[in-house]
Amino acid sequence: MSLLVVGTLAYDSIETPAGTAADELGGSGTHFALAANFFTAVRMMGVIGGDFRPEDRALLEEREIDLRGVGTAEGETFRWSGRYEGDCNVAETLETHLNVHGDYEPQLPPEYADSRLIFLANGPPQQQARVVDQARKDSFIVMDTMNFWIQNDNADLRALLKRVDGITINDLEARMLTGEPTLIRAGRAILDLGPRLVWLKKGEHGAFLFSKDFFFALPAYPVSDLVDPTGAGDSFAGGLMGYLAHAGVLDEEHLRRAMVYGSVLASFNVEDFGARRVCRLQRDEIETRYRELLRFTAVA
Amino acid sequence: MSLLVVGTLAYDSIETPAGTAADELGGSGTHFALAANFFTAVRMMGVIGGDFRPEDRALLEEREIDLRGVGTAEGETFRWSGRYEGDCNVAETLETHLNVHGDYEPQLPPEYADSRLIFLANGPPQQQARVVDQARKDSFIVMDTMNFWIQNDNADLRALLKRVDGITINDLEARMLTGEPTLIRAGRAILDLGPRLVWLKKGEHGAFLFSKDFFFALPAYPVSDLVDPTGAGDSFAGGLMGYLAHAGVLDEEHLRRAMVYGSVLASFNVEDFGARRVCRLQRDEIETRYRELLRFTAVA
Repeated sequence: MSLLVVGTLAYDSIETPAGTAADELGGSGTHFALAANFFTAVRMMGVIGGDFRPEDRALLEEREIDLRGVGTAEGETFRWSGRYEGDCNVAETLETHLNVHGDYEPQLPPEYADSRLIFLANGPPQQQARVVDQARKDSFIVMDTMNFWIQNDNADLRALLKRVDGITINDLEARMLTGEPTLIRAGRAILDLGPRLVWLKKGEHGAFLFSKDFFFALPAYPVSDLVDPTGAGDSFAGGLMGYLAHAGVLDEEHLRRAMVYGSVLASFNVEDFGARRVCRLQRDEIETRYRELLRFTAVA
Repeated sequence: MSLLVVGTLAYDSIETPAGTAADELGGSGTHFALAANFFTAVRMMGVIGGDFRPEDRALLEEREIDLRGVGTAEGETFRWSGRYEGDCNVAETLETHLNVHGDYEPQLPPEYADSRLIFLANGPPQQQARVVDQARKDSFIVMDTMNFWIQNDNADLRALLKRVDGITINDLEARMLTGEPTLIRAGRAILDLGPRLVWLKKGEHGAFLFSKDFFFALPAYPVSDLVDPTGAGDSFAGGLMGYLAHAGVLDEEHLRRAMVYGSVLASFNVEDFGARRVCRLQRDEIETRYRELLRFTAVA
C-alpha cells in the first residue's frame, strides 16, 4: 500500500547530556520517512527553503523517498533548537523558527492521489485537516499532535480526531487532552473522541495501543546509550506505518507486529544525534532487535 | 519450597484522589503474605503491639499464614500515614511512628530454620542483614529497600547487596542508588553491586527483570480505577515469590511467569484501600488476569 507523510523537513540544534549538535537534518517528515523507508517507498509532503542542503536532498532521494510533494519556497527551512536534561523524557524548546513552514498550505500532488496510508505529523490541526479533505475516502489516516495544539487549538484538534483512523500521542499530551490521571483511562478516553486506534507513547517505558477490540502493551527496546531522543516519536510512527504499508494488512496481528517495528526504529533513532543512526542503519539490525524485543517480552 | 517474609505489620492512614482510609491493616509483611498466600503457605516475622486487633490476627491466621515468628511487644503497632496525588506514582509520607518496630531485633524461630525462600521487606539494612546471618546458606533471599536507606545507610545497604540473590527496587530508588539517568543502565549497574536478579518496579509502567543471563520487560496490568497504591510493591513481591515457592523452580521460565503473577497481584492491590481488595480476591480472578496480561503483551 502506498504511504504518504505530511510533515516538516528541518534543521535542528540540540543539547543533551551526551553533547550538542547544530543544524542537524531533522523534522517530523524526515524522521518518519527515513524509518518507514526500510519497509516501503515513502511519499513526502512539506516545504523547504532555498538553504536546504543539496546533500540532504540527495540523502533522501538515494532512498526510495519521493520528494515530488516537497515544495521549495523563498526563505529559510524550518529550524528548531531544544534541550534535554536528565532522563531526556521531556524536550525544552529553546527556539522555533517556522520560516517557510509558517505559510505552508498542503496541496496533494496528483501523483499522490492514490495514497492509502497517510501520516499527518505534528502540525496545526487546520493544516492537517486540509490533507484529510484531499485524501481518498478509504485512506487509513494517522495523526500526531503536541501540547501546543491541545492548549491553543483544542476545538480544531477535536474536530480532526473524528476524521482520522488513529493518533500517536505521548503520555503527557494524553493526560492533558483528556484530564485523566492514569494512562489507561486517558487512552480509552481518546478512543471516545473519535479515532479507532490510539498509540500512547511513553518514551523509555514503551507504548500502548488502544482499540475498541483489543489492548496491546509493549515495553521499549532497552537502549543503554541514549544520545538524543529528537524524532523518536516520528521514527516510531515511521517504522509502524512503513511495516503496515509493506504488509498491506491492518488487522490486529499486523498492528501488534507493526508496533514492535516502530519501537525498534525509535530505539535506533535515539542512539545518535538527529537522524544519524537511522541513516547508517542496516535492515538486518532491525530484524535482530525485532527478535530481541520479542524475546525480552515473552513469558515462555 | 518454604517461604518466609520479614517485614512490618502496620496500621496505615491514607489519602488518595479516590478518598481516605484510617487505620487500615497494612505493612510490608502483611501485603506480601496476603499476596503470596494464594500460592503457598507463608511464614511471617515481625512485631506487633498490644493494640493489634484480634480480627486482623484472625484474618491472617484463617489463611495459611504462620505467625509464630511475629512477636508482641509492649507498646503500639507500627503506624504510617501518607498521601498520593495525581497519578499516584509517588507517596508523600505524612507521619511514621515506628512504635514497637523501632527496637525490632529479628530472631529466626527454630521452626523457620529450614526456610528456602526469604523476602526481606523494606527496613534498616543492618536489621535485614541479621536475618541473612541466621538463614540457611542455600536460601534464596530477595530484599527490598527505599530512598531513606539509600541516602542514610548507603554503606550497610551496599554490603547487604553482596549477600542477597535479588532485590526489588522502584525506578526513583534505582536512579538514586546508581546515579544512572536511564532505567536500563540503572538496572544493570545494580547487578554489578551484587545481586544476580534485579526487579525494577515502575508502577503503572510495569517492571523489568535484569539478570546476567536475560532481560525481561513486562507492562503493568491495565488498571482503570486506581484507588490506593500502598503495598503494591509488596503485593508484587508476594505474588512473585509465592509463585516461585509453589513452583519450586527458579529458572528463567519460572522467573518470567512469577513476574506476571506479581504484576497481577499488584494490580488487584491498588483497586481498593489497604489490603481490602486482596482480602476478598478469589484464586480464579488471578488466573483470569494472568491470561489477560499474557494476551495484552503478546505480539502474535
